[in-house]
Parts: sequence; C-alpha cells; structure tokens
Amino acid sequence: MDFGEVLEEIAAEAPQQVGRGKVASYIPALAGVSPEKFGMAIHTVDGVTFSVGDAGEPFSIQSISKVFSLMLAMRIVGDDLWSRVGREPSGNAFNSLVQLEYEQGIPRNPFINAGALVVIDALVSVLQEAKICFLEFARGLADDPGVNFDEVVSQSEDTHGHVNRALVNFLKAYGNIRTDIDTVLDAYFHHCSLAMNCAQLAHAFLPLANNGVSISTEDSVLTALQARQVNSLMLTCGLYDAVGEFAYRVGLPAKSGVGGGIVAVVPGEMTIAVWAPELDETGNSVMGTRALELFSQITQRSIF
Amino acid sequence: MDFGEVLEEIAAEAPQQVGRGKVASYIPALAGVSPEKFGMAIHTVDGVTFSVGDAGEPFSIQSISKVFSLMLAMRIVGDDLWSRVGREPSGNAFNSLVQLEYEQGIPRNPFINAGALVVIDALVSVLQEAKICFLEFARGLADDPGVNFDEVVSQSEDTHGHVNRALVNFLKAYGNIRTDIDTVLDAYFHHCSLAMNCAQLAHAFLPLANNGVSISTEDSVLTALQARQVNSLMLTCGLYDAVGEFAYRVGLPAKSGVGGGIVAVVPGEMTIAVWAPELDETGNSVMGTRALELFSQITQRSIF
Amino acid sequence: MDFGEVLEEIAAEAPQQVGRGKVASYIPALAGVSPEKFGMAIHTVDGVTFSVGDAGEPFSIQSISKVFSLMLAMRIVGDDLWSRVGREPSGNAFNSLVQLEYEQGIPRNPFINAGALVVIDALVSVLQEAKICFLEFARGLADDPGVNFDEVVSQSEDTHGHVNRALVNFLKAYGNIRTDIDTVLDAYFHHCSLAMNCAQLAHAFLPLANNGVSISTEDSVLTALQARQVNSLMLTCGLYDAVGEFAYRVGLPAKSGVGGGIVAVVPGEMTIAVWAPELDETGNSVMGTRALELFSQITQRSIF
Amino acid sequence: MDFGEVLEEIAAEAPQQVGRGKVASYIPALAGVSPEKFGMAIHTVDGVTFSVGDAGEPFSIQSISKVFSLMLAMRIVGDDLWSRVGREPSGNAFNSLVQLEYEQGIPRNPFINAGALVVIDALVSVLQEAKICFLEFARGLADDPGVNFDEVVSQSEDTHGHVNRALVNFLKAYGNIRTDIDTVLDAYFHHCSLAMNCAQLAHAFLPLANNGVSISTEDSVLTALQARQVNSLMLTCGLYDAVGEFAYRVGLPAKSGVGGGIVAVVPGEMTIAVWAPELDETGNSVMGTRALELFSQITQRSIF
Repeated sequence: MDFGEVLEEIAAEAPQQVGRGKVASYIPALAGVSPEKFGMAIHTVDGVTFSVGDAGEPFSIQSISKVFSLMLAMRIVGDDLWSRVGREPSGNAFNSLVQLEYEQGIPRNPFINAGALVVIDALVSVLQEAKICFLEFARGLADDPGVNFDEVVSQSEDTHGHVNRALVNFLKAYGNIRTDIDTVLDAYFHHCSLAMNCAQLAHAFLPLANNGVSISTEDSVLTALQARQVNSLMLTCGLYDAVGEFAYRVGLPAKSGVGGGIVAVVPGEMTIAVWAPELDETGNSVMGTRALELFSQITQRSIF
Repeated sequence: MDFGEVLEEIAAEAPQQVGRGKVASYIPALAGVSPEKFGMAIHTVDGVTFSVGDAGEPFSIQSISKVFSLMLAMRIVGDDLWSRVGREPSGNAFNSLVQLEYEQGIPRNPFINAGALVVIDALVSVLQEAKICFLEFARGLADDPGVNFDEVVSQSEDTHGHVNRALVNFLKAYGNIRTDIDTVLDAYFHHCSLAMNCAQLAHAFLPLANNGVSISTEDSVLTALQARQVNSLMLTCGLYDAVGEFAYRVGLPAKSGVGGGIVAVVPGEMTIAVWAPELDETGNSVMGTRALELFSQITQRSIF
Repeated sequence: MDFGEVLEEIAAEAPQQVGRGKVASYIPALAGVSPEKFGMAIHTVDGVTFSVGDAGEPFSIQSISKVFSLMLAMRIVGDDLWSRVGREPSGNAFNSLVQLEYEQGIPRNPFINAGALVVIDALVSVLQEAKICFLEFARGLADDPGVNFDEVVSQSEDTHGHVNRALVNFLKAYGNIRTDIDTVLDAYFHHCSLAMNCAQLAHAFLPLANNGVSISTEDSVLTALQARQVNSLMLTCGLYDAVGEFAYRVGLPAKSGVGGGIVAVVPGEMTIAVWAPELDETGNSVMGTRALELFSQITQRSIF
Repeated sequence: MDFGEVLEEIAAEAPQQVGRGKVASYIPALAGVSPEKFGMAIHTVDGVTFSVGDAGEPFSIQSISKVFSLMLAMRIVGDDLWSRVGREPSGNAFNSLVQLEYEQGIPRNPFINAGALVVIDALVSVLQEAKICFLEFARGLADDPGVNFDEVVSQSEDTHGHVNRALVNFLKAYGNIRTDIDTVLDAYFHHCSLAMNCAQLAHAFLPLANNGVSISTEDSVLTALQARQVNSLMLTCGLYDAVGEFAYRVGLPAKSGVGGGIVAVVPGEMTIAVWAPELDETGNSVMGTRALELFSQITQRSIF
C-alpha cells in the first residue's frame, strides 16, 4: 500500500472540515493559529516516512507532551508512580476538580491535567533540572536537537493558568504534590508549550510502535511491556472524554492536544501524527480525528 | 506454542488466589457458588480448542450477556441505537444513577446496566418475542441449542432488582425507554441469567475475533467493522470502572460479569473465556483477571 | 394593622406578575390551570380570617402535603423517623437521585420527594389505612370534612410518575422502604393530589403558629417543641433549592407546592396561604413568593 | 429570668461533653488549644451582660469573621454583591470545589470559603486598605480597640492554605476574583485569624439583634432589613452542612467557626457567644451547639 497516496487522499478532505470546530482560544498564542492548517506524517518502524500538507510546520503540542512526561517518569520513577495516579478514564472534562475531590487527591490517570501535574512532581522530586531533562528527552525521541519550548506559549499558559494553579494547590492539600508548586507549574507550562511538527512527533512516538526501542539509537527507551502499557493508557485515557468514541471510530492508541495535534500508534508497524487546529467540544481536533478514521478505514489498520 | 500447557500453568495459580475477593452475594443463586471454581477455555479461529478445570460447568454469565444484546441490536437496529446510548466509559459504578441524571437519560455506554436496558428496549421495540430471539441468537453463537436461561436466577434478579427497576423508570422519565417497563426488565433479567460454560462462551465470542464471521456457519454475524467496534467498546467500557487497569495489565478487549466470568478476544486469532467466582471491589473476577494477565504475559498476546 | 387592606394591596400587584413564570405542565391536570389565578388568605391564632381573590377556590396542594405527612409521622412514629431521613437542605433539585446515591439511601430531608416517600413508608408501616388516616388528618387540620383527594390528579401523577417510581425503587435497594412499593406510591400520589383552597390551608397550618395546638379543638396536634421543629424544617428545606433566597426575601417558615401554593407561618400570630400557579425555575410560585415578600415588608413580620 | 443562672446551668454540662469531638488540627495554632475550654457570654440589646467560664479568653474566631466581612460588604458594595455570590445552603462541605465547578464559579453563599473569598475580593476592589478597614470595623463592632489579628494563626493559615489557594484560583478562572489573588488570600487568612473572646463577640453581633443599630454609638451599622437578611443567611448557611440540624435543635440564627466558637442571635433581644474547641464531623463545636440547644430549651427562645 502506498501510504503517500493515502495521505493525499485524506488531505483532500481537510478543506471540507474547516469550520466544523473551534481553534483553542484560551491563550492568544493558540487563538492566532490559522484554522486551515493541516499536516500529517507517517513514520514506519522500518524508517520510511510519508507526509502531506503542513507536516513540517511546528505547532504547540500541548497535552501530547503528557506522553513524554509519562514515558520519562516510567523510566525514572518506575511503578511507585502508580500509587499517586490512577489508570482509569475519567468520564469528565480534562481539567475537572470534581473527581479529584471525590477520589481524595488521586488523579484518575496521567493524561488529565491533575495526573500530569503529579507525574511532573514525581520528575521534579528526582531530577535536578527536570525541565531541561524533559526537553533533552523529547529531543532524543524526535532525534532532533532543534525541538524547543515556546516561551511565549509557556508564559501565556502561566498567565491564564488559574485552573491548573487551582489543581496543583488542591493536589498539594491532599499531599499528592511533594515538591514546590511553582516549580511544578513552571515545568508543566513548559512541557505543554513544546513546539513540534508532525514529522518530529511521528518520529518521537516510534518506540511505542517498536517494543520500546528507538530506531535511531536502537536503545530501549522503554521495555516492550512499558511501551504496551503506554499504548493502553493512550487508548483508555488519551482523548479526554472521547476515548470510547475515538476507539470506536479509529481503533488506534493515540494522544491529542488542544493545539490540534493527535499522534496515533499502529503497534509493530508505524506512527501517525496529524495536525488540524479546530477542536470539537471534547477538545480533540475535528479533522485530526477524521483523518485518522479515514486512515484506519483505507488501510484497515486497527488494533481491534 | 502449546496453549493447553499455558492453561495448565495458569490454572496452577488459581488456588493461591482463592480468598482474595468475594463471591457476588446480592442474590442467593450466585452467593451459593463455590469460590474455588476455576475454568478456562480457548477457541482459535481455526477451530482448535483448549480447556482446563471447570471449563465445562455452566455459570451465570450476567453482564457478559450485554455483548450478545449489543451484537443483536447492531444487526437489527443499526446506527439508530447510538442516538440513545453513548460510547464512553462511565468513570462510575456500573449501576450508578448519578451520571444518568447529569447526562439527561442517555447512558454512557451499552455495557452499564442503564445502557443495556436501553439496548434491550430497542430490541423489544422491533422484535415480537425479543427474549426468545435473544436466546436463539446466543444458542447460535455458542453453536449449542442447550444454552438456556436459568429461571431461578432470573426470578431472583427480579426479586432483588430494585436498582435496575429504578434505572428503567428513570430512563422512562427521560423518554429513553419506549416500550413497556416490565417487558424490558423481564428480558433484562433473563439475559443476565443465561447459563453458559467457558467452552460455550469462547465459541460464542469467536465472530469478534474473526471479522464478524461465524466459524460454524461461515455466515457474517456482524460486519468486520462492527466486530472491531464491539471489541473497541469492550476495551473502553467492558470491565466496569476498571477498564484502564485491565487494558494496562491484560491488553485485550474483554467483557466481565458478576458471575465471575470474563471473555477476552485476540483479534484475528482466538477467544479466551475464564471463570472464577470471587470478585474484586470493581466487580471483576480476581482470578479471571489474573488468568488473562498471565495468558498475555506468557503468550505475548496483546493488542498494544 | 388592617390585614384585609394589606391583602388588597398585595393582590393589586398580581396581574403584573402574570407571565413571569410557567404553570407546571408535567401532568395535564395541572397544565390546564389558568395562570391568572391569585388567592391569599390569612388566619390568626385568635381565629380572625382575611382573604382576597381566589382564596376560596381549591387547587392541587402537591408538596405542601408533605408537611401534613410529616406532622402525622411525628405524632405516630416519633423520633425513630430521623434514623431514616435527614434534616438538611439538599442543595439540589427536589427530585434528584444524585444525592441519594452519594448518601446511601438516606434522603436529606422530609420535604424532597425521596424524603416524603420514606415518611409515607413509615406511616404505611404503622397504619392500617394510611391513605385514609392521612385524609382524615388533613380534614381535621382544615376543620373541613369536604377536603378530598383529586382522583384525576392522583391518577395522572401515577401515569407520569417515573421519577418517583425510580426514587422509591432506589430507596428500596438501600433498605429504606420497608413496605410495599405500590402502596407507598399510591399514598404518595394521593397525598400530592389533595385539593384545598387558601382558606383551608391557612386553617390547617394554624397549629404550627400556635405551639402545636388546634384552635378548633384546643387539642395538641403536636407538642410546642414539635411545632417549632416543623417550622425550622420548612425554613431550611421547604422551598426546594430556593430556601436561602426565600428566607432572605420573606423571612418566614413556609412550604410550597408545584400547584402554585405556598403556606407561611408567623409563629405565635398567624398563618398565610397564597396561590398563584406560575412557577419560577426553582419550582416555587412567582407571585406567591412575591406576595409573601410584600406581606413581610408591609407588615414587618419576619422571624429574623 | 436570670440568665446568669442559665449560663451556670449550661456550663455544668460542659465537662461531660469533653471527648465527644475533635479540636481542629489542620494548623498547629489551633491544634494546641485545650479541649476543656468553655466560655459563654450573653449581651442583651438593653446593655446587660452575663458570662461564664472562659468567656474572657480570646480564641481564633475563624469563619465567624465571615459575618463581619459580609456586613462590611453589604454596607460598602451593596446589592451588586449578589450577582457574584448566591444565598443558598450548599449541601456540601464548606471547602468543596465540586459545587463551584457545577455552578460555574458562583459560590452558593457568603459563608462557605469560596463565597467569603468573593466577598473579600469585593472589599479589596473598593477599599484602599481592606484588611485594616476590616479590623477597624470589627473593633468598632466589639467596641474594643484591643481586638486584633493573630499573626501566628494567619501565617499558619497561609502555610497550610492549599485548598483556599485552589479555591481562589478556581474562582479567578471563572472571572469571579477581580483583584490580586495574593491580596485576597492575605486578607482572608487575616480575617480568619481574628482573636476575640465570647464577651467581645456577643457585643459585636448586637446590631443583628437590634435592627442594625449599635447600642454603643446608636449608629445604624446596617439597615433593619439588612440585619434581618444577615440573620436569614446565618440560619440557612451559617453552620456548614449542619444548618438544618442546628435550626431544628436550637432555632436561632448563628455562625460557627472551626476555632470552636458559635455566635447566635435572638432578634430584638440579645446575642449569645459560646466557645468550646472540640468539633463534630460537620466542623461545628460539639459543646457550643449543645450549649445553645440548652439555652433554647431553658429560656424557650427560638425564632420558630
């Protein structure tokens, strides 16, 4: 199958979807992105790549960074992490405080904001320069030293970060933030601000399709079991309160961000990164979801 | 790989797990089951079977029947069903009324009680003898005309069915039950009472591992897409409020019941049914979950 | 002060308020009532009465009947009642199931539907003909043997009573309904259907303004302490999710019903019953609330 | 009636109640208070005072200060305040974030933490030195320039104030904090830290029993209507999630604090302040509640 042609076919539908969602507007740096952007990239575990549209243009990966935070924590912190954060879908909005109160400060999973804050606190507990370590880790995954934080975005997140500040204080009240609140928030806002393009993202997720092994270095970023575990967490928790719908329509583990990006994994075969800024009411990219659904239909790739 | 040996290896751990959970006690017919029962059966899409322990002894399949109800409704009602029931994990107990109130009478998915009641109402709307049609459908899937309702169990469910009766009345108040409440409840209690053994269950789930096709009749029970969709729903919604944990540990689509059964699907390859009556606090079989985790570890089968 | 003039002054504002609310429409028998009805009656503990408008026209008292049910249960069941029902405002809609689930089947107070169902169950447990006893009790309070159930309304409540049926089943699941569900519901629907006019209602509430003593018979319907307790429960729980607002604006213990009636108590002095069918979004009569606010302002009556 | 004797009679029961509750322990400054402290003071609108036990010993008034904050805001901000904070009991714990999320950042009433934070933000918006103005206002009410903040307590509140910090950030996210978060929190922690004794508190609440008029200066602190409104808010919202129970048992408007103080108002007649550090599970003083119940029973004072 010619994946280049598949991408062209999918990209042809992108213009029709424009206007069906809304570009994230809670910070100016995101609100200014053109709703017509569309990029998509495939990276196979054999090292072959395909791309279409704006696949080379960096965008704010936002919550996609939570996968990198988790991977780093699984390497460094290990299973102790799971005493502080659950592994269940939330059935609620990604920034809800409600469930946190009912469940006594243990976030439901590492991909909701509260969970990512705990994961980052775990990193900050262990690493001297957690923010820099994270950046180096992301660069290594993408095999590209040019990957960087977007300081304008991270500053803007900070300025408008009242809900995240509420979450981290609430977690602290339950004893589930152990380090300094401001350090954790600073790292969180920077992680979210990471700017990457589809090609870089597809490359960075490859270990999850390749039993944990980097195809660049042939090192194990994660064990094969850990790679499967991350995939399982993406499937059950990676798309905010639309995981069931995404699994039903697309059938691949994936993680989305409010910058409009989604990265999906076909275990053993490839990764697919897509970017289209307009979001549906669950916070997932409208055309990003549609693109992956089309990909699944055309190529018959599905884990189910 | 010799799956018979794998089953023997798994079964050897069963006695150690006894006492770590509790047999369901809300109806006498379930409470009387020995906590030491353990059976497990594999059925490959090539028609090879393996079994161990009490795999031939019928038990109450309870919520596993919700998969059959859904499959039948997908055949008969089609996509209209999804205007009345969602496709998202609940993040709540299987019999919760809370979410139903917040979400205005649309159950989150077809595998929580409220969702199954809506699915059955959809069947009752269309079928003259819905209960009988369901039984024939289950018999066909199991390729065994001896499969039957357990009238003692269904009667007992009815007697103790106050929460389900509350749910169906609440759904009716929102206009999401369109037929007669008593008919729907009678069907629901009977579906849950279905008595099957592991071998029959593994056989009955085979179309979900075989692109929707029955290996007995070579008929399409579901389309290939529908089979994948049912698998995705089991993965995200099939284990009550432990779907994330199960996906993390086992990595296979599955559906559990409070009778202690769990049936899992390895797409394209096989089905696995397991029975061990003691349940954990989420309502899933303790040894059933452990058995499938061991199976996944030993055989390296996982959709992730 | 001439209370007759006060009533005339208040009644003059009634036409202006028409159209600001909505007549209850969940059953046809209520939906057909003219939104322009307005009646108000005062009854002093000295036996003097005043009335205006449609004060002599019977209407469906609905939840106002919950005060009579409670008074009867306090006489007959005593303090045991309070192990089964709380004394706190709900902070939720009157027919919510949510709180009931979080609080394990103990309704927050006797004036929400779930609480009234428990109160009625307590009456049915003790009384042979609870429904008849209740009717006789209400007749005695009103000093009028002509008070009666409206069978059309009670039948209609039954037909549309899915939420109440859900509530009673849910309570039964928690063991907090001890008698027959259908008997409890039948009594509940009949209590709600009681048809009374403002003059009768003002008379019926007099013991609550008179240390528990009936001014007709000079018997103690309740002890002085119990009368104060009922008044306190009306103040904190008698106006659905608008008790704080009502206390702020009116400052008198009162109980409302979706038929548009409200009865208020000025301890030691008088009772006031008002009827105006249009309801605000909390389920309380718009002009009924306004009338009592005007009464409080003009006469400077307030318990605060 | 000799209120001095009444106080002696009540005080005699205090030792028996010791051990039935728990002294607040979330900050060291409160945790160190002896559970055996008991003081009670009465101040009539005619200027007569009575006291017993530790009525002259200052303690941390905590949430009782919310009444002073509200009174000051009603004077200065007026009815605009009510567009930002509700007037309904919460049906939840005093520091819950849940309801705030469901109700979009409008706290249910000014006596829960979130509501008090909004009230203080309203004060900070208007007053140059809000914290000092508040202190002067409290001193004026108590007619005692010696009333002061306890800096050890306010510092300790700050150090352990994660939930309040979460609340204020959450409110800010909804746009319901308009000034600087740190200024609001600093004022909030200082208000709560106010140290007063029972005699001072009884004096300070007198305008609420006296149509808003100070008996020292004969000035109107509030209008008569506003005084009644504050009383109504105390009755429906002043005792955390135990307002119904308190109204049932005591029957007087009151406000409690986790320092173990409660101040009650007998409209038109007197105020009563009581202090006993041990709290029940709702956060109200065990012996404080019991003392006011005894007072109500012995003196037959009740607004109902």
